[in-house]
Amino acid sequence: MENERDNAGYTGIRDENVVYIGKKPTMSYVLAVVTQFNKGVKEVRIKARGNSITKAVDVREIVADKFFPDVRDLSIRTSTEELVNEDGTRSKVSAIQITLSRGLLTGGLGRQQLSGADHSHALHVNAGADNRKPG
Amino acid sequence: MENERDNAGYTGIRDENVVYIGKKPTMSYVLAVVTQFNKGVKEVRIKARGNSITKAVDVREIVADKFFPDVRDLSIRTSTEELVNEDGTRSKVSAIQITLSRGLLTGGLGRQQLSGADHSHALHVNAGADNRKPG
Repeated sequence: MENERDNAGYTGIRDENVVYIGKKPTMSYVLAVVTQFNKGVKEVRIKARGNSITKAVDVREIVADKFFPDVRDLSIRTSTEELVNEDGTRSKVSAIQITLSRGLLTGGLGRQQLSGADHSHALHVNAGADNRKPG
Repeated sequence: MENERDNAGYTGIRDENVVYIGKKPTMSYVLAVVTQFNKGVKEVRIKARGNSITKAVDVREIVADKFFPDVRDLSIRTSTEELVNEDGTRSKVSAIQITLSRGLLTGGLGRQQLSGADHSHALHVNAGADNRKPG
């Protein structure tokens, strides 16, 4: 599948603070984001393209829903990337980039709950408890 | 498939200016958005959940790439919806809402090209020319 090739590099954290969404289970990427924030990072960027876009949104939602209710979107941007196929033709693929933050300026945020109680959630507590439906 | 049931209503424009992404081909929804803008609507909202989220992003990107280069995102928001299954259990599903605008305030927009030349693009010109790759 072209899928496999195109997402070959999207298997976890590559650049610092960037989580590339690929073929692993959703909770692997949730763990990657949670780990970054638990290390004290203020911003984590989730990147995905093609069919992984839905998984990127799932990751963002599970992080906010189960782990860090105080997380917020610094930005959500979509884009179009052009890929060169093996036969030399070009294909376009949509991409998304979700930049999350914690612990930055906190004024006037709708979804925010600064309980401070869940900073070190163990992943296993929730793993498997949020099997998102595909549609 | 639960998919079918959950997205049963997501088959086109339902509320005014809202395009719900469902099981139809991507270009159907591109046409729906383009039609709204061609009617003079200033804002169109694209809504999707679950696996249709990727298609929503494709629609947004194709509208911007092929039809209205001056379109911009008023907002992109994600959320979690809770569904009640047939057996009474509940499932969570991620959702996205992309609000696009044309012809509103135009100051300082990075992607904007106000050529004004493409307001009445015929869909068939581009239909099939942007078969997005799944990943």
